[in-house]
Amino acid sequence: MKVGVDYYPEHWDVSLWEQDARQMQEAGITIVRLAEFAWSRLEPTEGKFEFDWLDQAIAVLARHGIDVVIGTPTATPPVWLTHNYPDVLPVDNKGNAIFAGVRLHRCYNSPSLRKFGERIIEQITQRYAAHAAVMGWQTDNELAANDCHCENCTRSFRGWLQKKYKSLETLNREWGTVVWSGEYSDWDQVNTPLGGSPYLNPSFLLDFRRFSSDVVADFNRFQAALIRKNSPGKFVTHNLWGYPVTADYYDMFDSMDFASVDYYPATDFLDDSKSRMYHGALTLDLTRGVKRKNFWVMEQLSGTPGCWYPMSRTPFPGMIRAYAWQSVSRGADTIVQFRWRSARVGAEQFWHGLLDHHGQPGRRFEEFVQFSQEAQKLTPLLEGTSLKHDVAMLFSHEQLNAFQIQPQADGFDYLGNFKRLHSALLKMGVGADVIDWRERLQGYKLVIAPMLYLIDEAMALTLKQYVDNGGTLVLTTRSGVKNMNNVCLPDRLPNLLTELAGVYVDEYDPVGKDVQTLSLDTGEALSSGQWCDILTPVTAETVATYSSEYFSGASAITRNAHAKGVVYYIGTVLDEKATRTLMRRIATDAGIECELELPDGVEVAVRSSEERQILFVLNLSKESREVSLPVRDYVSALSDRRLRGGSINLAPGAVEVLVEVNATAASVA
Amino acid sequence: MKVGVDYYPEHWDVSLWEQDARQMQEAGITIVRLAEFAWSRLEPTEGKFEFDWLDQAIAVLARHGIDVVIGTPTATPPVWLTHNYPDVLPVDNKGNAIFAGVRLHRCYNSPSLRKFGERIIEQITQRYAAHAAVMGWQTDNELAANDCHCENCTRSFRGWLQKKYKSLETLNREWGTVVWSGEYSDWDQVNTPLGGSPYLNPSFLLDFRRFSSDVVADFNRFQAALIRKNSPGKFVTHNLWGYPVTADYYDMFDSMDFASVDYYPATDFLDDSKSRMYHGALTLDLTRGVKRKNFWVMEQLSGTPGCWYPMSRTPFPGMIRAYAWQSVSRGADTIVQFRWRSARVGAEQFWHGLLDHHGQPGRRFEEFVQFSQEAQKLTPLLEGTSLKHDVAMLFSHEQLNAFQIQPQADGFDYLGNFKRLHSALLKMGVGADVIDWRERLQGYKLVIAPMLYLIDEAMALTLKQYVDNGGTLVLTTRSGVKNMNNVCLPDRLPNLLTELAGVYVDEYDPVGKDVQTLSLDTGEALSSGQWCDILTPVTAETVATYSSEYFSGASAITRNAHAKGVVYYIGTVLDEKATRTLMRRIATDAGIECELELPDGVEVAVRSSEERQILFVLNLSKESREVSLPVRDYVSALSDRRLRGGSINLAPGAVEVLVEVNATAASVA
Amino acid sequence: MKVGVDYYPEHWDVSLWEQDARQMQEAGITIVRLAEFAWSRLEPTEGKFEFDWLDQAIAVLARHGIDVVIGTPTATPPVWLTHNYPDVLPVDNKGNAIFAGVRLHRCYNSPSLRKFGERIIEQITQRYAAHAAVMGWQTDNELAANDCHCENCTRSFRGWLQKKYKSLETLNREWGTVVWSGEYSDWDQVNTPLGGSPYLNPSFLLDFRRFSSDVVADFNRFQAALIRKNSPGKFVTHNLWGYPVTADYYDMFDSMDFASVDYYPATDFLDDSKSRMYHGALTLDLTRGVKRKNFWVMEQLSGTPGCWYPMSRTPFPGMIRAYAWQSVSRGADTIVQFRWRSARVGAEQFWHGLLDHHGQPGRRFEEFVQFSQEAQKLTPLLEGTSLKHDVAMLFSHEQLNAFQIQPQADGFDYLGNFKRLHSALLKMGVGADVIDWRERLQGYKLVIAPMLYLIDEAMALTLKQYVDNGGTLVLTTRSGVKNMNNVCLPDRLPNLLTELAGVYVDEYDPVGKDVQTLSLDTGEALSSGQWCDILTPVTAETVATYSSEYFSGASAITRNAHAKGVVYYIGTVLDEKATRTLMRRIATDAGIECELELPDGVEVAVRSSEERQILFVLNLSKESREVSLPVRDYVSALSDRRLRGGSINLAPGAVEVLVEVNATAASVA
Repeated sequence: MKVGVDYYPEHWDVSLWEQDARQMQEAGITIVRLAEFAWSRLEPTEGKFEFDWLDQAIAVLARHGIDVVIGTPTATPPVWLTHNYPDVLPVDNKGNAIFAGVRLHRCYNSPSLRKFGERIIEQITQRYAAHAAVMGWQTDNELAANDCHCENCTRSFRGWLQKKYKSLETLNREWGTVVWSGEYSDWDQVNTPLGGSPYLNPSFLLDFRRFSSDVVADFNRFQAALIRKNSPGKFVTHNLWGYPVTADYYDMFDSMDFASVDYYPATDFLDDSKSRMYHGALTLDLTRGVKRKNFWVMEQLSGTPGCWYPMSRTPFPGMIRAYAWQSVSRGADTIVQFRWRSARVGAEQFWHGLLDHHGQPGRRFEEFVQFSQEAQKLTPLLEGTSLKHDVAMLFSHEQLNAFQIQPQADGFDYLGNFKRLHSALLKMGVGADVIDWRERLQGYKLVIAPMLYLIDEAMALTLKQYVDNGGTLVLTTRSGVKNMNNVCLPDRLPNLLTELAGVYVDEYDPVGKDVQTLSLDTGEALSSGQWCDILTPVTAETVATYSSEYFSGASAITRNAHAKGVVYYIGTVLDEKATRTLMRRIATDAGIECELELPDGVEVAVRSSEERQILFVLNLSKESREVSLPVRDYVSALSDRRLRGGSINLAPGAVEVLVEVNATAASVA
Repeated sequence: MKVGVDYYPEHWDVSLWEQDARQMQEAGITIVRLAEFAWSRLEPTEGKFEFDWLDQAIAVLARHGIDVVIGTPTATPPVWLTHNYPDVLPVDNKGNAIFAGVRLHRCYNSPSLRKFGERIIEQITQRYAAHAAVMGWQTDNELAANDCHCENCTRSFRGWLQKKYKSLETLNREWGTVVWSGEYSDWDQVNTPLGGSPYLNPSFLLDFRRFSSDVVADFNRFQAALIRKNSPGKFVTHNLWGYPVTADYYDMFDSMDFASVDYYPATDFLDDSKSRMYHGALTLDLTRGVKRKNFWVMEQLSGTPGCWYPMSRTPFPGMIRAYAWQSVSRGADTIVQFRWRSARVGAEQFWHGLLDHHGQPGRRFEEFVQFSQEAQKLTPLLEGTSLKHDVAMLFSHEQLNAFQIQPQADGFDYLGNFKRLHSALLKMGVGADVIDWRERLQGYKLVIAPMLYLIDEAMALTLKQYVDNGGTLVLTTRSGVKNMNNVCLPDRLPNLLTELAGVYVDEYDPVGKDVQTLSLDTGEALSSGQWCDILTPVTAETVATYSSEYFSGASAITRNAHAKGVVYYIGTVLDEKATRTLMRRIATDAGIECELELPDGVEVAVRSSEERQILFVLNLSKESREVSLPVRDYVSALSDRRLRGGSINLAPGAVEVLVEVNATAASVA
Repeated sequence: MKVGVDYYPEHWDVSLWEQDARQMQEAGITIVRLAEFAWSRLEPTEGKFEFDWLDQAIAVLARHGIDVVIGTPTATPPVWLTHNYPDVLPVDNKGNAIFAGVRLHRCYNSPSLRKFGERIIEQITQRYAAHAAVMGWQTDNELAANDCHCENCTRSFRGWLQKKYKSLETLNREWGTVVWSGEYSDWDQVNTPLGGSPYLNPSFLLDFRRFSSDVVADFNRFQAALIRKNSPGKFVTHNLWGYPVTADYYDMFDSMDFASVDYYPATDFLDDSKSRMYHGALTLDLTRGVKRKNFWVMEQLSGTPGCWYPMSRTPFPGMIRAYAWQSVSRGADTIVQFRWRSARVGAEQFWHGLLDHHGQPGRRFEEFVQFSQEAQKLTPLLEGTSLKHDVAMLFSHEQLNAFQIQPQADGFDYLGNFKRLHSALLKMGVGADVIDWRERLQGYKLVIAPMLYLIDEAMALTLKQYVDNGGTLVLTTRSGVKNMNNVCLPDRLPNLLTELAGVYVDEYDPVGKDVQTLSLDTGEALSSGQWCDILTPVTAETVATYSSEYFSGASAITRNAHAKGVVYYIGTVLDEKATRTLMRRIATDAGIECELELPDGVEVAVRSSEERQILFVLNLSKESREVSLPVRDYVSALSDRRLRGGSINLAPGAVEVLVEVNATAASVA
């Protein structure tokens, strides 16, 4: 366990550095990430490099026992670069240059970006590779896919398509360009989606998103290769943005040693509170799943975010610490707080750091210090621990993109529906791995594979093998709709999954916001919306039937015993309560222990190693909460107090790190 | 009565065609519309034509007794055309090319579009003119006005203005360009409305809309002439989009033999339900009025629409059939369902056809088959029948456009206000013709002429002559405001109509969403909004006075006996209930039979010939409805059962086609 | 007191002019403003001038005793100018020309605009300078800042920056361009904010707004100098738009003799009624503060506004007159109604004048005539009177711009928060001067300085000296946050004001829409939102503490006795009721008489000279209101009736102009 901060020495007078470093050291900080936006300081004009200031900054930090992670500065091309080489700027779908704003004003396919990007990375990595205080490297910053239509992207997109489809005939056939006379007769006719109409061919739009995603992954690979060449033996990571987007995070991280995430949970508890309340846990689970191992938080919330838009609420007392522990509980091994000092200049002046503009320690800083000290205390305990789960949820940027191109019904939202399933598990204390949908599934008792809208034979086979071997699989509506080229499959839904599910979709109704009711076979009533499949079970048995509208009495949810395993098919989008009811039943059926029933905002997680199990219990709400834990003898690793389990009270922001007494007597003693 | 489908053989493997044709034949289909989006298949590269596939498709269909309507493929210029001849693409008001999206990516004034459009139309018409299975032709698809600012449009617009105004002096005077120094001193200074500001001169904006409308009508005329030259004796029609828009449908159809419409009633019964519920009937009445005779539905709802936007509800059981019968009840002689198979590729994948992606017949298909069989049964009965009404409503694209340019008050909406008057008639079972406001009015007992905002002496004379001859005329607020150049008239409102109405507007208040109350001379209270004219009757008598605000006590609605006729002036925008109350009184006054009071969603219509009268009664709602019919002896033409009238119960989606027993004993026997 | 109208002779046939002038004369009109949009009539083609029509129009008016104010016509460059010299058109941040719409289609930095603008102004001023009927001049019309990115603006902006910062090093340092590698290494790299991203450097964005504001002020100065050169001895004014915007009105008017305003109070009493209800009074107070003396209304509401957007309500009976008297009550010495006749042509057809399109006098005209006659009667009484107040509110376009660039919290709005404080004073009958925040403060008992977000040493010193000398100062949250370059200051908030306020901000929370409660030291409960400073009083005493959330018990409002004066610091944004409660207490504390408690919509104002005091009491609401006035002996200057004070009833639109009997016996007698 290490604790650090993001620090921008170039924003502050050199006279402050020593004081900052000393104060960091006192606060238990041993890591600083820096330099990721400093291109204009490292290369003030074309080809003129200035590293003295960075040498000095690293030296000051190192003198205080602080190691550094250096970020390559490519996320912010300097003004001289975009001015002298305009091909660096992306071009929008009307042909206008996209000028600088909140960073990222660069086309990944720009030859100038590649050329000058390579040079600055070479310079930095060669200079600091051997430096004892340099732990490793961060590539760029929060990489995101562009929607760029410049000449280089157009040419590159054509090449990408040629590689994928070989011939224009194949492309025309696979995309179905015959519709509306969209057939290409020459490769030169193939452009990016100019004009940006949402009515364009969905196969074309999806491939352009894949291309845009591949371009990002390639840019990250290009950086990783340069770094590894010059700085062998040091790690390379990237700080992903917590909210899934066009760019496929699994591809983007294939060249990284481990994942990092920038974690800014919502500080506002109002309105859409439950959905936002549980978004954080999903973010962290997603991040852990990217490389299927522990990760770093490279930017951790330290104050109210906000700059060009209105500021959110200041984190409630205790939350700076609680969110940091939440990150740890879900697999973070290093917490780097964003940022040391709040910026006095520039667009992020109000994205608050640990220290306010006046630089005096305050409440938030003290909370961080408490966390830092606690982290230091628990480091031996956490050493070698990670999260091990019987449940996996399959996440897919492919589906996310396809559903954004063709939203299915009013209110239908891939990420929202995914989150509802995830938080149902969370509320019953069941940990889950959130992994790439293409991953191997061995070892899981329960796999939840929501909305497998795009599918191919390989995926269907993976799922079949998993069930054949005794696994329990949960499928949902809008599965098996299309092939991977975004073209509807020719059989009854769920098509390639029909046999496995033992059920087919007779008819469907995109009910949108019209609420429907279902009746579980226990007689319990459930509610759903968005979409209703009217099911015809073949080998499956019915778990729930509709009790509303013209499809009243038809099967809505089924269970199919298949080989050694079981497949559930949920033919509608259950609301929050109904999702919890059903998931508890399915989990129990799959032999998952799910004895907990956690109140809103309370989360648990277990980190374990062969030697020990560590139970984290967190109250991330603003109110006190009563939680019923299994009655066992625990010792709190933070307070060293004994705890018997049963009903315990958690103050707002409370963090309990519990170890069963017998199991860990040695290590806690 | 004929029944057909829209079919895209080019989207499907040739091996399926035979099976499709056989299944169509079994379903009673005798018409297929095809080829309207197939330009890239008919001319894959410039000047290379391929008709073999179409020959074969038509042959397969013909072998199964199916005739075809061929669409000219100009709605979807192929990629080679827009790539090689960029003038085909329209240009927006900022000067950017408008790229392909949902079709229509072509400027009607593009010389290349005309040249290559002419060639493909010549090729198709020459090849298929003599084919026995070719019934007739559809031009293009859902023609709409462009907002194009390309060089060709600019030049053409100048020519259009020169023809209209002759001199720049006249144009300056008529448009009032003196305001804000907008005077032109040279024709070269006259552009299309670049920049798109809504603050531009309203006379200029209206003329540009007229020009854009004329351009569409001209393009349709150009196609019709080519078709007639090569294919004499076969019909030419066009499928209009059901919702009125900038382009004047009456002009657009002057070159057509009859009107067709693409009919997609809302499948969602919620929210804005009543307004949407009755939109369908207005669409069909409007279509019938375009050529004042029976029409075709060229695309009839067959499943949930949706593609790039979220899908709507699947049509409720019975509605596929009910909407088809609704079309027939309002004058459709042919119903062509859109579409046979749901597309597996392209942007319209989720605009569902009769068959789902898997191609197996389901509920919706069976409903269609029922309709098809019923239609076959009733064909002899319907032969030669049409709709004959005592009431006409005057519709005007001129007013629609003028009100879009200058909305009068918060909530004021030409089409919405028109629809409220139309559905008031509908609810009391009174059929109305919806016709071009410039049509002759002889033979109608009641003419409703809402919101004649733009007016000229000729129109005023037409109305006067109609009233002189004993007609009853209904005028509303915002009449007589402007001359045809969108310039305010110089006398008191309603200006040219003041003498006829026997009342003038003393003052007005755009009350917007502030609800006002009125008191009818019977003492009944009415509600209104949007606009209040404070009236001073001259020769008219007061029918209702305001009872709210500072104009309480002033006349709001008047009735003027003029020559042999009567003129009502409604000085405010009544709400739904009040509109029904007033329209019942006016209709009764005009000697119109209006004994029915239909519940929400129930519609009636009468088709008749000299020999017979056929009463259609439809329940287009989701609930059962009780309807009180005149007590007579009917026989149901569908079930052959006898029915006595009086209170009858209609299930959701119920369709009754009733013939009075005495009158039709012979034909029904 | 003079009364006039805006008149466009060029819009009407010359045959109407004589009749119009006669009717004006009869209505008591002695002033006409004209010609401000007539460039295309004055110079129909380049270099060809036509003044005969204007000579004639002025002559006709003069014959009826009407003097004219001539507007320079630069707000509407004619078509030949923009066509021949495209540099006249502004360019948006994507590089597209901004075409004509609602006027102002000109870049102030365009050499062609300057050249041809200078020529037309020279022509007009030379021709009419000596004309006896020409009273004075209006420059342009409702000048507003552009967001222009043309080459001339880019070059000019660079020059502006060079003048301000001298070196690029200074600019880089002051703007903090080091953030995100935004450092400039060459002046040629400095552009306007291309792309328009709100995420750009806030120092850059603020300077661009200042530049844009300076450009407007310079354009006005350029016009004023030309006019004064040719027409010495005649006044020069400008008609400002009532709602504060980017352009700094204080700078814009430095070259003017007095301020004028275009006054269009909202005619709609619904919805956001209270905020809009009191916006008018603030507009008039702001206008009076621009030159700290009486002003003109150059356009006064005469009917419903509206043209391209839906029309608003017609002014309620009495309101045309009441709003005119409201203007007078707050310092207007001349009322010019907009406009004589409603336009029959062009984009402003529905922006109604005194006469409707038909030209016959109606209710609104008669109300105006009443006002005109009353104004004539009261002219001797009002002669030499003005408004003298003990309270000043400091308004700042700098803060307005800075807060628009970086909104602080959900709902935080500079103008709205300012208005809440202003209307709290209004409701207790306390008049206030609204003045430039840089003005001298001598003579005021109470100065309210809200949200001094940007600050410098000079401003802090001004405030300190004011308090040192015994003044009472009110500061609010978000004060002392930044230096004038939009960079956060380095000490605890309120930074430069901390000592003066005797309190510092320990922590803050942008609570947005989460309502908070406070407890006044009297025990009274208050509500607030948007922002909460958690205060630590040093020398100040606590006036109110928070009673909600985690900061319950902390100081929220403080009072600091400093030297001879007092400083209040309000650390949160109080709601309407709480603002009134606190402001009454503060005003009382400062020795301000605030005995009134006015119902909604009632306003009072006092104009006075050494000889007399004139009390205006207005009911601007739609309902009758009961008002409690001090019990004194008044005489009504309008009706000549005696009035004893105490509780009086005001009908909707009522206007009372009262003079105390003793004080003014002589003049009223």
